[in-house]
Amino acid sequence: MPDPAASLDLIGRGADEIIKREDLESRLKSGRPLRVKAGFDPTAPDLHLGHTVLLNKMRQFQDLGHQVIFLIGDFTGMIGDPTGKNVTRKPLTREDVLANAQTYAEQVFKVLDRGRTEVRFNSEWFGAMNAADMIRLAAQHTVARMLERDDFAKRYAAQQSIAIHEFLYPLVQGYDSVALKADVELGGTDQKFNLLMGRALQEHHGQAPQIVLTMPLLEGLDGVQKMSKSLGNYIGIAEPAIDIVNKAMKIGDDLMWRWYELLSLQRSSAQIAQLQRDVAAGTLHPRDAKLALARELAARFHSDAEAEHAVSQWIALVREQRVDVDLPLQDVAAPASGLRLGPLFVAAGLAGSNSEVMRKLAERALRIDGQVVENRELVLTPGSELLLQVGKRAFARVRLVATD
Amino acid sequence: MPDPAASLDLIGRGADEIIKREDLESRLKSGRPLRVKAGFDPTAPDLHLGHTVLLNKMRQFQDLGHQVIFLIGDFTGMIGDPTGKNVTRKPLTREDVLANAQTYAEQVFKVLDRGRTEVRFNSEWFGAMNAADMIRLAAQHTVARMLERDDFAKRYAAQQSIAIHEFLYPLVQGYDSVALKADVELGGTDQKFNLLMGRALQEHHGQAPQIVLTMPLLEGLDGVQKMSKSLGNYIGIAEPAIDIVNKAMKIGDDLMWRWYELLSLQRSSAQIAQLQRDVAAGTLHPRDAKLALARELAARFHSDAEAEHAVSQWIALVREQRVDVDLPLQDVAAPASGLRLGPLFVAAGLAGSNSEVMRKLAERALRIDGQVVENRELVLTPGSELLLQVGKRAFARVRLVATD
Repeated sequence: MPDPAASLDLIGRGADEIIKREDLESRLKSGRPLRVKAGFDPTAPDLHLGHTVLLNKMRQFQDLGHQVIFLIGDFTGMIGDPTGKNVTRKPLTREDVLANAQTYAEQVFKVLDRGRTEVRFNSEWFGAMNAADMIRLAAQHTVARMLERDDFAKRYAAQQSIAIHEFLYPLVQGYDSVALKADVELGGTDQKFNLLMGRALQEHHGQAPQIVLTMPLLEGLDGVQKMSKSLGNYIGIAEPAIDIVNKAMKIGDDLMWRWYELLSLQRSSAQIAQLQRDVAAGTLHPRDAKLALARELAARFHSDAEAEHAVSQWIALVREQRVDVDLPLQDVAAPASGLRLGPLFVAAGLAGSNSEVMRKLAERALRIDGQVVENRELVLTPGSELLLQVGKRAFARVRLVATD
Repeated sequence: MPDPAASLDLIGRGADEIIKREDLESRLKSGRPLRVKAGFDPTAPDLHLGHTVLLNKMRQFQDLGHQVIFLIGDFTGMIGDPTGKNVTRKPLTREDVLANAQTYAEQVFKVLDRGRTEVRFNSEWFGAMNAADMIRLAAQHTVARMLERDDFAKRYAAQQSIAIHEFLYPLVQGYDSVALKADVELGGTDQKFNLLMGRALQEHHGQAPQIVLTMPLLEGLDGVQKMSKSLGNYIGIAEPAIDIVNKAMKIGDDLMWRWYELLSLQRSSAQIAQLQRDVAAGTLHPRDAKLALARELAARFHSDAEAEHAVSQWIALVREQRVDVDLPLQDVAAPASGLRLGPLFVAAGLAGSNSEVMRKLAERALRIDGQVVENRELVLTPGSELLLQVGKRAFARVRLVATD
């Protein structure tokens, strides 16, 4: 077991909250491997980098010698949507659950250490519970405290209906911690209420309450909104290495450092701080720091060789586009709501007026990051780093910097 | 099967609400025996006349040829208080439940027709339900609608805690109607919310919603508050015949007519109306109408002979007290808040002043209904009929009539 202080540093890296830090410290000092729980939906998973923030934290616990529990919440998954309103949430069969668990395994063991991962299904204990047990569980919490959960409070205030079973689900998740005797539960910041439920129920059952560790939600490629499928701002972990590299190379520098903190397993916090200092001092080009991160991510989900090949491809592609990637990076001020094409190209010195920019667009002579721009209404948001192009020869590298 | 219109008359007698009357009418017209459910607590029962209001209604359904279901809610009784806060609500064992059912049987079959009573326990279906079934049941109602229940609304507004399982209990009661395929459910007015739950759940399960029939809560001996053990204003059905008669003879005339409507099975509504007319016309002394009711009640829970004997005893007792029970009845005006001893005895013509009344009290010379009055602060409330006495010879029979 590593030194508790060092453990605490690594565990705390990127964490949003640890409740309570002193409890974590004293359990780490005990020297015994902690039982670290994280719960996952039993629906067919298709993970992106956002999901790996939690997996990385689990992996760090494993590297520190702790026991990680990958809990699949199949009990409620097999119920589906009990109101019957959501037809897309069909009840899963046991076969579905096992098939989905297999799909999970193929993905998560690219991050987790299989040997130190206990995969569990909560149907194991809830399947054995009867209706009276569920009533007893429901008695362990009050309506008022449940209505304090942020989303419930909002829906109740907005007179949107909350079915009563929705009050039971946080209790189910909390009871999982009792059944697993969890020392620590990990989750996104949006899960905090449910994670705290585990503490309450463990105390009720005479167990020391688990430590709750929340991780922030990863910002997606746009650097603003959380990474999600529906927003299209994601990198899927099953994507080809070249796509991982291409997408990762488009993120802004600020986001790059954020991703380093939450996604890099190879670089320690100290090493990342050194990279930042080098970039600030001008001894390291931010593009090279980004390439190193892109290479690490591609290698994690593919092989080192594939990652290396993808990086070479990216460099070749950029060369082929005859773009001097060593162009100086200009800062362009942009309001938080974003900048339209006219002001952007004018500010970058590539056109004299908005109307000239629009004329070039009509001629299909405007490009951003090598792509012809067709949408006159396009708005570019602060945080992104872009390669602008007019015709064959005029280039500018700009970084949009928020003014407000 | 009797004529539906006649059935509807008898069923409607004394009812507070019938939801929906037209549904009841059409089911009565179908000619098939209806399944009439009423739920009872599984805790040790010790019934008083207040409880028999519901039993009488069940009996009337039986007399009309319907099937009555005496449902014992043992499922939740065997859970006890799942919060563990109420130590007096210990979980019942199956043996407790059966013993209590036996105690019920000894009492309720003094009213119900044993041959037409189906005794059921809801553990029959809830004992077979698992935790997932309970979640599905919980999904059939919303938090907002549950919080509309009067007592929940009040507690929530007063920030008194409501444990989540309390939201499940109305659903349990409602589901009983589904399991029993009830056509009608009977309950007190305070049960209306839970009875309506049965309608909602039956519809959800593709059954025609039950008719809900609520009965008022019986006023106790004081004629004001509902009959209850804790208020001491009750007649227990296990009390000796003489006590039933003595207590019943003390109620006011207004309350007598109310009791006739809700408690008499021998007299039809038409017959009761005739009694009222006779009393109004002076051809029937209200005391004799009251004696007839007292005799009926005593006979129900004992035998005709015992009832007759109790009535004779009452008459002898009154004679022995040398009281002329044929004294004219005087009306004495009294505010709703009641009349103190001084004004009462002065108004009845038995004393000249409040101070004289108090002096007589100090001499232990004041009696009401044969009992020496010791409490100077006694307040008599409107509605009661009293025999006042000062010393050995001075009597007055008064009825307190509300002035506001």
